[in-house]
Amino acid sequence: MALIVQKFGGTSVGSAERIAQVAEKIKGFKAQGHDLVIVVSAMSGETNRLIGLARDICADPDQREMDVILSTGEQVTIGLLAMKLKSIGIPAISYTGAQVRIETDSSFGKARIQHIDEAKLRAELDAGKVVIVAGFQGVDGQGNITTLGRGGSDTTGVALAAALKADECQIYTDVDGVYTTDPRVVESARRLEKVTFEEMLEMASLGSKVLQIRAVEFAGKYNVPLRVLHSFKEGPGTLITLEEDLSMEQPVISGIAFNRDEAKLTIRGVPDTPGVAYKILGPVSAANIEIDMIVQNVSKDQTTDFTFTVNRNDQRRTEEILRKVATDIGAREVAGDSAIAKVSIVGVGMRSHAGVASKMFEALSRHGINILMISTSEIKISVVIDEKYLELAVRTLHSAFELDAPEQDSDHI
Amino acid sequence: MALIVQKFGGTSVGSAERIAQVAEKIKGFKAQGHDLVIVVSAMSGETNRLIGLARDICADPDQREMDVILSTGEQVTIGLLAMKLKSIGIPAISYTGAQVRIETDSSFGKARIQHIDEAKLRAELDAGKVVIVAGFQGVDGQGNITTLGRGGSDTTGVALAAALKADECQIYTDVDGVYTTDPRVVESARRLEKVTFEEMLEMASLGSKVLQIRAVEFAGKYNVPLRVLHSFKEGPGTLITLEEDLSMEQPVISGIAFNRDEAKLTIRGVPDTPGVAYKILGPVSAANIEIDMIVQNVSKDQTTDFTFTVNRNDQRRTEEILRKVATDIGAREVAGDSAIAKVSIVGVGMRSHAGVASKMFEALSRHGINILMISTSEIKISVVIDEKYLELAVRTLHSAFELDAPEQDSDHI
Repeated sequence: MALIVQKFGGTSVGSAERIAQVAEKIKGFKAQGHDLVIVVSAMSGETNRLIGLARDICADPDQREMDVILSTGEQVTIGLLAMKLKSIGIPAISYTGAQVRIETDSSFGKARIQHIDEAKLRAELDAGKVVIVAGFQGVDGQGNITTLGRGGSDTTGVALAAALKADECQIYTDVDGVYTTDPRVVESARRLEKVTFEEMLEMASLGSKVLQIRAVEFAGKYNVPLRVLHSFKEGPGTLITLEEDLSMEQPVISGIAFNRDEAKLTIRGVPDTPGVAYKILGPVSAANIEIDMIVQNVSKDQTTDFTFTVNRNDQRRTEEILRKVATDIGAREVAGDSAIAKVSIVGVGMRSHAGVASKMFEALSRHGINILMISTSEIKISVVIDEKYLELAVRTLHSAFELDAPEQDSDHI
Repeated sequence: MALIVQKFGGTSVGSAERIAQVAEKIKGFKAQGHDLVIVVSAMSGETNRLIGLARDICADPDQREMDVILSTGEQVTIGLLAMKLKSIGIPAISYTGAQVRIETDSSFGKARIQHIDEAKLRAELDAGKVVIVAGFQGVDGQGNITTLGRGGSDTTGVALAAALKADECQIYTDVDGVYTTDPRVVESARRLEKVTFEEMLEMASLGSKVLQIRAVEFAGKYNVPLRVLHSFKEGPGTLITLEEDLSMEQPVISGIAFNRDEAKLTIRGVPDTPGVAYKILGPVSAANIEIDMIVQNVSKDQTTDFTFTVNRNDQRRTEEILRKVATDIGAREVAGDSAIAKVSIVGVGMRSHAGVASKMFEALSRHGINILMISTSEIKISVVIDEKYLELAVRTLHSAFELDAPEQDSDHI
């Protein structure tokens, strides 16, 4: 008998039939004697419908009022799931974020959880009820409704698990676990039994859509065992846990992540004086544009080239800023390139293994894939390459680091 | 400069265009210097959509969870209207029932308002904001979301006006006021300038759909001047107020109400012993069936006939109960008739005028309309007639009591 927090996403509760399936699943867990807190998202499509309503009203909707509207999506789902459970004989009760209460800061649209009052939840659990909590939402100190941003329901689940000191937080999704890489790109990708918080964090920040970064951060910070599972298929999923809990046979590399969301900006012929990096990147950051990788070339003739990546959506704005900066500091030219992709290898095993980087570079060069930028962390190496080589690079690295499944796994998604 | 509470129903906020129109209307009032609290319903169709979702989940949805779901309808509208106002430069803020806080009892689906905390609203008004409040909803002492029942937004408007001691509560609808009778039945029906709370109450309980009974009761109890107006047409509407505020020229009869919602049940040959009425009606009331009019015939041969009306939806259930009762008390037979209609004349003027009833009966008999049942109150006389004579009866009484418009009013709905 354990206390488990289970989170079901929008697709898992996207119709009356799906909600009924989720209810039966919960009934099964309840029959095993577990205490259950269920976090749900809005029914799939609902959040977009609500955003559409707001956009019809005005082009740039006020964010406080947007949160008032968006939070209704999850509120409908908690009511539906709770009434379904009651109708099949399982005592259940729904709670909005404000009712719990899940207190956040006042950053509407991207609020951060500050405190969870677990007393009411505990009392409902003690009374034998399944508690259904609206994901993605909270309330600030003044009683305003807030939302945590897209995918915030995962964070709600982890935060509740931390507050309640739950035995496990289970995230039910439309995949049956975390894979060594995207199975749509590499057929032989394998489901991982276990992965560390840190690795998951790198994978998530590198573009893996399985879990929200903030949820993984939160889970790592409070050491909440997190499990990714398929909503409607049986299976152990992938457990995300502390490094110490991993088996000794942990491979060097756990997975290959990639994304096509970035664009590369280069400013050439920059006079190489102290503080030039700040002069270039300061105005970009000031415009709230997030910078990912940065490379500065060695100086030649007292000038240098400066390259960095931003989200493709920000490319045009960044170029405008850079052109102004180039004039101010006397740089030669500004160039942008969006036909790039980032490929990363991730693994805590890197810490104790030398030569991982050179193995990666060698494998890529063997296929004539030119590396445009490199960035490393303790457990990750990322390279930027020409976008057209992306699939080839991922497959090459997947096999070079021996991640391919021993036999064809016909069960993966 | 006045403090006005304005309530806009589901049709008035049924689309982005309508919400924009309402926002412009509010902007106009604000420009006149008024303090405004706006109560809104769910967008038209939304409440039915939400009920549909719940019905897809289970046949008999839990009422607490139903209220969690239903309350989202108004929550979306307050967000949309508040963001629209802000986008056209009017400071505005939305409040759910729980945020206000509008405290109710715990009768989910038909909760009654017990207390309104007006402090926050007052502070927002003092800060120059238009406050948008979700109608139809509240929160009980334990923090559960409640709803006031269909049409409850009118009640929210009146209750807020009472709590804030507003100068007027304006109910915007799809009609331009209260009419002497339904203009679809009598072309010469006139809009009333003023009508008393009591008269409005009788008309509402007799089937006039313009205002919710509870809202009128509430307004009368706290003497909140209530005005019914058209959402998108200019005009003074109808003011509902205390009797003392009416002009001296008040006519004897203010309006003719009618409905086709009732069925007539008769139990014949009942042994006329003390307590027999209770033996018949007790089991009906115990089954939660509301009884409207009751007539007991004079006794003949120690037996009597007993007739009463119930809502047509309850007719079959009532007949079943009566057949059992008839066996128990030794009555002869039970008969039901749904082809009836109720017509009522309403007016505070009745108090000071004799002969109103005989004038009514004479007018009906002149057209061969047989009266099946009669019921009277201080300011109302209702008769049950054969349904097929309904329109004729209404037109006859409308003209007999001189309610017809002096000339053709081409402006009414």
